[in-house]
Amino acid sequence: MNIIRGFPSTSNNAFPLNTITFLKAAARTFPEVGIVSREISGAMWRYTYKEAFARIRRLANALVKLGIGPGDRVGVLEWNTHRYFELYYAVSGIGAVLLQVNPRIGSADRAYVINHSEAVIVFVAENMLPLIESVEKDLATVRGYVVLTEKPAAEVRTTLSPVHHYESLLAEQSETFDFPMIDENSAYSACYTTGTTGKPKGVYYSHRCIYLHSLMQALMLGINVNDVVMQTVPMFHCHGWGMFFSATLAGAKLVFPGMYTAEKVYELVDIMIAEKVTVNGGAPAIFMPMLEYIKTLPEPPEFKGLRMISGATEPSLALMKGFYDLGGAEILHGYGATETTPLVTLNRLKPSLAGVSETEKWELRKKQGLPLTGVEVEIRDSDGRVMPHDGKSVGEILFRGPWITAAYYNDERTAESFVDGFWKSGDAGTIDENGYMKITDRFKDIIKSGGEWISSIDLENALMAHPAVLEATVAGVPHPKWEERPVALVVLRDNFRGKTNKEDILEFIAPRFAKWQLPDEILFVDEIPKTSVGKFSKKDVRAMFGDVYRKKG
Amino acid sequence: MNIIRGFPSTSNNAFPLNTITFLKAAARTFPEVGIVSREISGAMWRYTYKEAFARIRRLANALVKLGIGPGDRVGVLEWNTHRYFELYYAVSGIGAVLLQVNPRIGSADRAYVINHSEAVIVFVAENMLPLIESVEKDLATVRGYVVLTEKPAAEVRTTLSPVHHYESLLAEQSETFDFPMIDENSAYSACYTTGTTGKPKGVYYSHRCIYLHSLMQALMLGINVNDVVMQTVPMFHCHGWGMFFSATLAGAKLVFPGMYTAEKVYELVDIMIAEKVTVNGGAPAIFMPMLEYIKTLPEPPEFKGLRMISGATEPSLALMKGFYDLGGAEILHGYGATETTPLVTLNRLKPSLAGVSETEKWELRKKQGLPLTGVEVEIRDSDGRVMPHDGKSVGEILFRGPWITAAYYNDERTAESFVDGFWKSGDAGTIDENGYMKITDRFKDIIKSGGEWISSIDLENALMAHPAVLEATVAGVPHPKWEERPVALVVLRDNFRGKTNKEDILEFIAPRFAKWQLPDEILFVDEIPKTSVGKFSKKDVRAMFGDVYRKKG
Repeated sequence: MNIIRGFPSTSNNAFPLNTITFLKAAARTFPEVGIVSREISGAMWRYTYKEAFARIRRLANALVKLGIGPGDRVGVLEWNTHRYFELYYAVSGIGAVLLQVNPRIGSADRAYVINHSEAVIVFVAENMLPLIESVEKDLATVRGYVVLTEKPAAEVRTTLSPVHHYESLLAEQSETFDFPMIDENSAYSACYTTGTTGKPKGVYYSHRCIYLHSLMQALMLGINVNDVVMQTVPMFHCHGWGMFFSATLAGAKLVFPGMYTAEKVYELVDIMIAEKVTVNGGAPAIFMPMLEYIKTLPEPPEFKGLRMISGATEPSLALMKGFYDLGGAEILHGYGATETTPLVTLNRLKPSLAGVSETEKWELRKKQGLPLTGVEVEIRDSDGRVMPHDGKSVGEILFRGPWITAAYYNDERTAESFVDGFWKSGDAGTIDENGYMKITDRFKDIIKSGGEWISSIDLENALMAHPAVLEATVAGVPHPKWEERPVALVVLRDNFRGKTNKEDILEFIAPRFAKWQLPDEILFVDEIPKTSVGKFSKKDVRAMFGDVYRKKG
Repeated sequence: MNIIRGFPSTSNNAFPLNTITFLKAAARTFPEVGIVSREISGAMWRYTYKEAFARIRRLANALVKLGIGPGDRVGVLEWNTHRYFELYYAVSGIGAVLLQVNPRIGSADRAYVINHSEAVIVFVAENMLPLIESVEKDLATVRGYVVLTEKPAAEVRTTLSPVHHYESLLAEQSETFDFPMIDENSAYSACYTTGTTGKPKGVYYSHRCIYLHSLMQALMLGINVNDVVMQTVPMFHCHGWGMFFSATLAGAKLVFPGMYTAEKVYELVDIMIAEKVTVNGGAPAIFMPMLEYIKTLPEPPEFKGLRMISGATEPSLALMKGFYDLGGAEILHGYGATETTPLVTLNRLKPSLAGVSETEKWELRKKQGLPLTGVEVEIRDSDGRVMPHDGKSVGEILFRGPWITAAYYNDERTAESFVDGFWKSGDAGTIDENGYMKITDRFKDIIKSGGEWISSIDLENALMAHPAVLEATVAGVPHPKWEERPVALVVLRDNFRGKTNKEDILEFIAPRFAKWQLPDEILFVDEIPKTSVGKFSKKDVRAMFGDVYRKKG
């Protein structure tokens, strides 16, 4: 990027953008605003920004006493608690880097992430101790451990060594700590992507990056001092989308739900009602069972003014409408990734579209939305040509800007993932005349037929809407005339086997597609090949059925 | 400021914060959103962000053709129009500096500002031509002029030379222009303060400074794509508080009222109603006559959701309540100065204070409000000691942060105006336990009596509320026992002369003050000494009446 130098300014440009600035401001201007955190025992920890800042100063002293200094990497495995909140501010506040360790990845990847980052200490929740104990012998750089728990030290059992107790460390320390200013380009935290192939890739976010992202996210969600923000997105992955940073800078009340499981999401609903939550974020996989639970309540809650940010390739209308019926709660679809901090698009209805029908409005809300100011977006075809914003031209979506990563840390895969400073998302999509981005597919799964594009995801969604279909996937396979053509794999429901056929199903989906977009073959199978994390493996589909059209050539 | 370097990040920290990013994003994502501008003729110019961007690219080509390059200073005298909007983006977009020339300052200062900045070209509104023609011979560095007008070139009469015509320049140029990226620490614009003493002082704002300020202002006012922002604050002073930048980045509709005068503010009201304005900003001196006009309308407008940002040392309750009665319109008091870009505090009601009485709420709203996240605020006494935030301890207010200036351009008064990177505002005030800042006085006008502080402004406001008082001022003068004591100068209304006395007046104001805070002397005078701009000259008051208590010693 060619950058031109102009005339000097008199502004205080040397004043760095630091994470600790948010916390200092909250403790100064919103000292009485509350933070609620659910302990493993179910007890609700309640304190204020002022009290949190005092504990964070104790924690900073404890970190220094443990020998942690600027630039050191500090691993953390923890649920969404006030202790994780404290660690984010204290670790970054002294110039160290908080390494987010995802408890859901395999032990080999867990050890890889800790070793690759060369973390010197690991903070770990008491009920996640086995996740670290099992890999302790493989950790090359870790000098010690700290257990995060409400239990007294004497009740903690672990084979980790040397090991400290978080609350005891804090109790020993002074509340006096003068946070230094950190070069804003330094890393405040690191998160490793959990791709389905290869080793995790490290994204090291700068103070500047998270500062700007947090401001823009607060603006996009309209977070202000009257809001109550719940941190539902796991803080061990992409810093929980940074919701708690946006809340801190706006002086909003914060709610940490602690540990929760997919089976007990009703607990999240109960907390939302009790704490009067107005802003939340999460995956549809969490919101959908929450809605199911809400429907069982004798008196459904009034969620007037609630904004819930979510992300899905094909958002569910039932989910959005279900929450909307609770007093107008909004599910705002966005797009993001570990590499983009994450928010880069958000779906909002523009006033120029206020006149479209209700049906069209809901369809519109399913798109990934409008790119945020400050982030550059491009759609490029496989030859690298920039595509127009016409709602039709499909290509890989690329992002560039202050909160987009420009590399992976110490990783040779950087070369293939970036071009001209843009991150190549691997997602294919369009941007329409109104500016709305729509993800249509994984870029590598798009089907190129006779110079035109066919979305495998659109076909899959249409197929799965057929009552006889249990599962369906579509992949592009070589074709002697058209380069690629779609082939569909369909698993029928037990009670429909033998009672439907290719023609039935094609007739069902035909109204949604041009004729040339329909699969030439629908193969009825007992099972669709899947990856280790349960996604359809299109690689395997192509390997197994790649010859289906060649034979016909 | 000691800045610690941590571990490198992988973020795209080299991607600079630039003004043009806002405009590019608006043209990309909100191309259809409208911009309205009132011409001198009264005609309403209407176009969209997309069309504005096209004209701004033409303008950039015109600037280059005129020989303007990165770092050059470009003077502008213009009303609040779309042309000023275009100049802000095009001039800063090519890396040059837009010099705001205030038409309301004297001709000597006007020439000083243009010469001190070494502007090479001046853009000037057709009906302000005399303001530049009268000083043309004194302008040392200006190589040419451009006239801003809706009139055709042939109708413009001026002695300036060489002179160009804005619309003709644009018509000649191509719409193709690839804006470069500018080092974010470079100046995008300059504004000179209009102090009552000495020459104007130059504040040169960086791209980074205005970028961060615009984001935070949009967040504080909750500006979003559904808003209609009116640019009432003059764009020739502190870039009109940057309202139009916040609007652009949020994709809000923009309204430029063009030229308006204090006598015809009803025109502003008519535009607000016609364009459905939801965000505005301005001085109480503008808002008050607007409210008076609204009261004369047969059907008062419904201003539901309207937010108007304002600044005053002692905000008027009548003004705030008057707008509130129009459907809940809010006047949000803030504090700022040329040196602070300007917004640094804003008055919002915290939820923790929701329970106070209506009367207390209105009193609270009169304070300057809560300091913004990202800006450091300190109160220091005359010995430089930092005062606590207890609502009582008075001192000079100091500000430091990314959008606070750290110097005056090429000006030796920088030394006396800054300490530890903080700008010394010259205003005295307090911050209370709830975080609200209150300006009590100009720091040099505070009266120090027996170790306690007395606000001259509070006394003046109380005196002027007396029906017999036309004008009143209070100053601190030396006292042999108490160090300083207040003396009041009062001009009586004609029909009250001889009908009131010192005791009457003291009795009237006594309930609002402790006994020791009351002036020992009230001097009835025919006239209060004033400065050249009509403010009370306390310097002259002290010179004339400094001995009043010494004699009694």
